[in-house]
Amino acid sequence: MLNYKVHLSYDGTCYSGFQVQQNATTIQGVLQQVLQVLYKREIKVTGAGRTDAGVHAREQVVSFKAPPFIPLAKLPLALNSMLPPDIRVWHAEIVADNFNACRSAREKTYRYTIDTGFYPDVFRRLYTWHYPQEVDFAKLEEAARYLVGTHDFTAFKAAGSKVKNNIRTITDFKLLHKGNFVVMQFTGDGFLYKMVRIMIGTLLEIGQNKKARPEDIEKILQARDRDKAGVTAPPHGLCLWSIKYR
Amino acid sequence: MLNYKVHLSYDGTCYSGFQVQQNATTIQGVLQQVLQVLYKREIKVTGAGRTDAGVHAREQVVSFKAPPFIPLAKLPLALNSMLPPDIRVWHAEIVADNFNACRSAREKTYRYTIDTGFYPDVFRRLYTWHYPQEVDFAKLEEAARYLVGTHDFTAFKAAGSKVKNNIRTITDFKLLHKGNFVVMQFTGDGFLYKMVRIMIGTLLEIGQNKKARPEDIEKILQARDRDKAGVTAPPHGLCLWSIKYR
Repeated sequence: MLNYKVHLSYDGTCYSGFQVQQNATTIQGVLQQVLQVLYKREIKVTGAGRTDAGVHAREQVVSFKAPPFIPLAKLPLALNSMLPPDIRVWHAEIVADNFNACRSAREKTYRYTIDTGFYPDVFRRLYTWHYPQEVDFAKLEEAARYLVGTHDFTAFKAAGSKVKNNIRTITDFKLLHKGNFVVMQFTGDGFLYKMVRIMIGTLLEIGQNKKARPEDIEKILQARDRDKAGVTAPPHGLCLWSIKYR
Repeated sequence: MLNYKVHLSYDGTCYSGFQVQQNATTIQGVLQQVLQVLYKREIKVTGAGRTDAGVHAREQVVSFKAPPFIPLAKLPLALNSMLPPDIRVWHAEIVADNFNACRSAREKTYRYTIDTGFYPDVFRRLYTWHYPQEVDFAKLEEAARYLVGTHDFTAFKAAGSKVKNNIRTITDFKLLHKGNFVVMQFTGDGFLYKMVRIMIGTLLEIGQNKKARPEDIEKILQARDRDKAGVTAPPHGLCLWSIKYR
């Protein structure tokens, strides 16, 4: 058996997230179905990031063990020929046996995009949150600086997660303006359940002078109480952008 | 009654084109339904360009006559609140009685986008033609120069059109490279049925050294025979980009 590392993009609009579920169409589920047909056996796929329902991925990485009978150079095309058009594999390699797409990941980058135009751009409607309200982005960026670093992010974790260690390190935040679009990019060693979307919701509230000021992020972190943070931004503005490995 | 000029964008993926049809969902049909509910009377909409099934519009312009009871500034929001999210109105104005979105148009610009990446970009799959074949774009551009000017475009018209005068003037062609995407942009006083898509199909064949050379465009035009031109490019790469009025 060989250990494969496969890179793919997907439009999450029509999926109930990455992780396989009973009676729901998921990215992992579709990948495993296709691999089962291709290799004529059950193959378990491990993903780098468990994106939620409606969240997209420019770069998701999965690993799986499979027999060596499909030439590596043909593997992406073989998978794409059976995958739906909203999932595209674009790279495959053979890696060491101990590589695991999730556990070996060192750093993940997520991008959240808002459309600040008064009227939304129809061609980006599935990939951006239409947010025409006035936002003070300097203030938003100032608030985001308080999130960078190693913190207990309990206040930014949604209910329903079994993870016990809520300490994560955010290594970078970037704000990019592209015409009417504003991209907010977080890089870190890992993110809790809905953490990026709760951070985005909180930052946008601060940028609109609602409830909190930039420096209040410290208090919100210290409170470790989900109710102290802001709303959860909708999933369709979020995209798993890239993953770095050791 | 006032004469309204309304600008809108749409994602044509789910529509059987602009023009109203029995038993099919069209842009004009949906607009007329919404206007009928809004104004409580039948309202006939005239569009600047009759985009085909699956073709998109960044800027489509429509005109219609309606009573004055909706304030102009509220009209786009009133329409958007009833339109599906893949159609967005973004401007409205009151124009002279003799304005007609189709007849008053002086110039239209269409853009055709191909994705030249070996693997397609999932986020642009609905708006670009995946075309990973090697193309000599200098040769393609040279061929396009022969299309600019006033010509009889019968060879570039699909069957099924009742239009008799096939003479049109193309005032400009532009080729733009944006990463893996190549945009081919035509501006002219008007375009025949599927003319842009047949021109694109023909240019791409020339760019791949199939059948014709750039200078053969002259012969194809002179032949006035659809069979002499190339294939019809698929609709989803095409977008009505802008319209100029007198």
